[in-house]
Amino acid sequence: MPRLRLALAQTNPLVGDLAGNADQIVRAARAARDAGADLVASGEMSLTGYPIEDLASRPSFLEASHRAVVALAERLEAEGLGDLAVVVGHPDGPFEPRLLDTSNAPTAIAKNCASVLQGGRVVTTTAKYHLPNYSVFDEYRVFIPGDELLVIRIKGIDVALIICEDLWRDGGPVGRVLDAGAGLLLVINASPFVADKDEVRLPLVTRRATENDTLVAYVNLVGGQDDLLFDGDSVVVDGSGAILARAPQWREHVLTVDLDPQASENRELPAGIRRVDVSARAFGLYNALAPDIAELPDDREQLWNALVVGTRDYVEKNGFGSVVLGLSGGIDSAVCAAIAADAIGGDRVYGVSMPSQWSSDHSRSDADDVAERIGVRYSVEPIADLVEPFERQLHLTGLAAENVQARARALILMGLSNLDGHLVLTTGNKTELSVGYSTIYGDSVGGFAPIKDVPKTMVWELARWRNEFAESRGERGPIPENSITKPPSAELRPGQVDQDTLPPYEILDGILDAYITKALGAADVVALGYDADVVAEVTKLVDRSEWKRRQGAIGPKISGMAFGRDRRLPITYRPTGL
Amino acid sequence: MPRLRLALAQTNPLVGDLAGNADQIVRAARAARDAGADLVASGEMSLTGYPIEDLASRPSFLEASHRAVVALAERLEAEGLGDLAVVVGHPDGPFEPRLLDTSNAPTAIAKNCASVLQGGRVVTTTAKYHLPNYSVFDEYRVFIPGDELLVIRIKGIDVALIICEDLWRDGGPVGRVLDAGAGLLLVINASPFVADKDEVRLPLVTRRATENDTLVAYVNLVGGQDDLLFDGDSVVVDGSGAILARAPQWREHVLTVDLDPQASENRELPAGIRRVDVSARAFGLYNALAPDIAELPDDREQLWNALVVGTRDYVEKNGFGSVVLGLSGGIDSAVCAAIAADAIGGDRVYGVSMPSQWSSDHSRSDADDVAERIGVRYSVEPIADLVEPFERQLHLTGLAAENVQARARALILMGLSNLDGHLVLTTGNKTELSVGYSTIYGDSVGGFAPIKDVPKTMVWELARWRNEFAESRGERGPIPENSITKPPSAELRPGQVDQDTLPPYEILDGILDAYITKALGAADVVALGYDADVVAEVTKLVDRSEWKRRQGAIGPKISGMAFGRDRRLPITYRPTGL
Repeated sequence: MPRLRLALAQTNPLVGDLAGNADQIVRAARAARDAGADLVASGEMSLTGYPIEDLASRPSFLEASHRAVVALAERLEAEGLGDLAVVVGHPDGPFEPRLLDTSNAPTAIAKNCASVLQGGRVVTTTAKYHLPNYSVFDEYRVFIPGDELLVIRIKGIDVALIICEDLWRDGGPVGRVLDAGAGLLLVINASPFVADKDEVRLPLVTRRATENDTLVAYVNLVGGQDDLLFDGDSVVVDGSGAILARAPQWREHVLTVDLDPQASENRELPAGIRRVDVSARAFGLYNALAPDIAELPDDREQLWNALVVGTRDYVEKNGFGSVVLGLSGGIDSAVCAAIAADAIGGDRVYGVSMPSQWSSDHSRSDADDVAERIGVRYSVEPIADLVEPFERQLHLTGLAAENVQARARALILMGLSNLDGHLVLTTGNKTELSVGYSTIYGDSVGGFAPIKDVPKTMVWELARWRNEFAESRGERGPIPENSITKPPSAELRPGQVDQDTLPPYEILDGILDAYITKALGAADVVALGYDADVVAEVTKLVDRSEWKRRQGAIGPKISGMAFGRDRRLPITYRPTGL
Repeated sequence: MPRLRLALAQTNPLVGDLAGNADQIVRAARAARDAGADLVASGEMSLTGYPIEDLASRPSFLEASHRAVVALAERLEAEGLGDLAVVVGHPDGPFEPRLLDTSNAPTAIAKNCASVLQGGRVVTTTAKYHLPNYSVFDEYRVFIPGDELLVIRIKGIDVALIICEDLWRDGGPVGRVLDAGAGLLLVINASPFVADKDEVRLPLVTRRATENDTLVAYVNLVGGQDDLLFDGDSVVVDGSGAILARAPQWREHVLTVDLDPQASENRELPAGIRRVDVSARAFGLYNALAPDIAELPDDREQLWNALVVGTRDYVEKNGFGSVVLGLSGGIDSAVCAAIAADAIGGDRVYGVSMPSQWSSDHSRSDADDVAERIGVRYSVEPIADLVEPFERQLHLTGLAAENVQARARALILMGLSNLDGHLVLTTGNKTELSVGYSTIYGDSVGGFAPIKDVPKTMVWELARWRNEFAESRGERGPIPENSITKPPSAELRPGQVDQDTLPPYEILDGILDAYITKALGAADVVALGYDADVVAEVTKLVDRSEWKRRQGAIGPKISGMAFGRDRRLPITYRPTGL
């Protein structure tokens, strides 16, 4: 008979919302107890949200977090859940600063912790050892590393409790805690989604389980937090590498599984490892659980869901009632409108067609079409009468005249936002943002950019997938076929198409993947087989558009290398193509 | 007789400009040799500029840097400077990544190095031990720490060579290299200016010198690099704490000083310390140098110079020929115009008065006045005819109507920028940006924000100082007295003044200093004596304006806690006042 019923709680915290996040944990604990669990674990920083960034350096924030942990333990007891052991993630501090600070700015004074709550009190707390400080992670900036490992003994089973990065490091603490006789490795995580994460994360969990012949339970957060997306996908793997349980992506979920870990052995613990007894509740016998093993959908569906969740959580967590975006009839705005409608419902999406004198007839009709398919609220605001006074007064020509059109549209959208409180969505894709093919303070205006990390070729692919998905369910696809097939154009002058200025998108996306994502120099990109002149042109555009990019809106990060926090480059620098 | 003539070369590198930065080092080396120096040291990363951020994770960039170091050594020899020992800062790599990367993004593969060049070759290289990762520093993100210390022996004197942060850490490598018998501690730095840095940096250098009874030579970069400013202020201090030499702030300068360090003792070196002989050139006798000890100007002059240098270097390093800004007649735009004129000359500054129907008569006349005083190129573009079509077509009222005025002005400035290639300066001060008292895509538009880190009360103070400075030289002050004394107003509706909406600026700046710079929670701010309702209102404004701030332009960072990279907070988060 299984000896431990474990629950993994995927919660969707909002950074700083201590009360709301605690509510989520209490709800998850109740569900876990109702399912007969002995132990329930929520994700890394489940009480404060992740990442808290420089809030970790504010003593008042740390003190409030500390009070919230204590209050959560008391509340669990008060609500009849005190016999359940509950693992919660939170910062702890303030501690003495790790560093002498040379500029009077706050340095790290907090640790990234997991606490076990039971019987109305905080039984024990452990801190993360390894602090990631690459890509989107700033943990070495804001945290002090832990220096001790924790094993909790519950129902005679030793459970090693570690946090996220500590699992990833070869030669990290995993081997040491397992050598100490732990029968289950419990890892709490805030592990962001990237398009190929499934190829990395599950194999790692499996490898740690098999190389140590042990059970590994991995719990992750869900939800969108600015440009980060947490996909859930919590999983339990046994020592043979078999998946015993797996939670769905993108949804709050309490995953419950029966485990039969090896019993504790009362070995002598090495220095630096603590063991703490967590008293077990009075257990009745219970019925065996059916296995709960979610299946991952295919890559494009995962990606679509990621964009939808990122958009929904940005809107909801920031308290917007609705969104507004320009509908040009092109593919980007159609896909953004479909994402928004899937996220919050078409009745909360406001689409505005803003034709100019250069707009084609199909722009208008395709915009009408997408609005009708998706069921968004729709209006038409021609820009000719708005643009003309600027052109006349300032004698605008050429690029200046093109840009004033895009900027007049931005004024319309921001005006509607100011009137009615909509969040403005900006519809630029990763390809055009990478090369600066957008108008700053024009089409780049907005608070959230649903597809800023999606290359143009992938935008088309997602559009096709979304339509097929609809058709497979007997529905009409949300994206007009004409928006998918027609040549892309900014329509800022007569007859303009993107490929007047840019290489074909298949080539452009290939070069950008090599230069930005794979961090190759221009010479190495050419060595992949791309034309040297085209590579020189594209890398120069990328180098020069860094400032525009840095001013861009938040948007879901779905690739290993997106824009924003995880690619930090100087603005002032000599473009080199290196 | 002094036994070592040391030169410290303050250069002003541009990130990525390997050729231009090498030119600066060669020029400095020539000046040092002409002054009879044995050894010349330039600042941290003098060859690549600082900070290189994620360029450090691009193998092609590291390889180009490596080639540039070798080429620089050869060139110094070829130009007859090979007998001089030249210390240059640069990244070295690629090395094996420090970390397993969990998201396929580049991790640290480079070290932050100093090399000694002599006789046409790279004699030896050392790497920074302690990698700062707080405030504006991201070094733990992009670099691998060094694991060995270097002492170079030149003319029988052991010189310990360390890099920046390694000086700051108590218990850091300083004690160990000096215990090994070094008679001179040579520190190369990229040490950013902050308003009170002088109260921190020189005392530290002095403390290290006196606590070890040794000579300390400290060389810093100069110039602006995005929001960072390097002020130079290189200094040499002896074991009694006396200043032997000090370079001026803000200027490229080769500081030369005669030193008489203790002779080397051929002690056994502890593990982890290397000694490398650097052959001395054939030295003639030379005449004693007069002491070169610059005096620091007062705080306000330092600050003004900081803003001027930051603005100048942003304009010049990014290749702009001119700047354009709106002149409202108010204090902020007048101060920005004066800074710009001091930076690049009034004939390269374009001021535009953009009166609306709500603009007061004095707005126009004060704008005329500042333009005339500073000698900027000046034009008037009324906005009424531009705004009216938007208001009519979109039925804009209230805040939406106010904002469209600010945004129409932005379209004018960006239109002129597109026509003529000007850089747009945005004139917001730290106070109004902190509380979101600005129109996004309106007055916040621009590439560079000269006073974004200057609180409103300090803007007034600097204006008065600049006028007094002019008068002390028999010139007319650039800022109209009326701009200094009149109540500040955005003039977006009739009779509006800032204090309709905001607390008095003295109180507001006090609260912002406590809440943002000192990182106090709202309750602690109230405990300082501020009204609780006002504190609640202000902290809420700050929390809510984070996104606007994050989208702001680059601007000189002059306080310990400025906006941008050194204050990283989530966008999506529950405002708490913590």
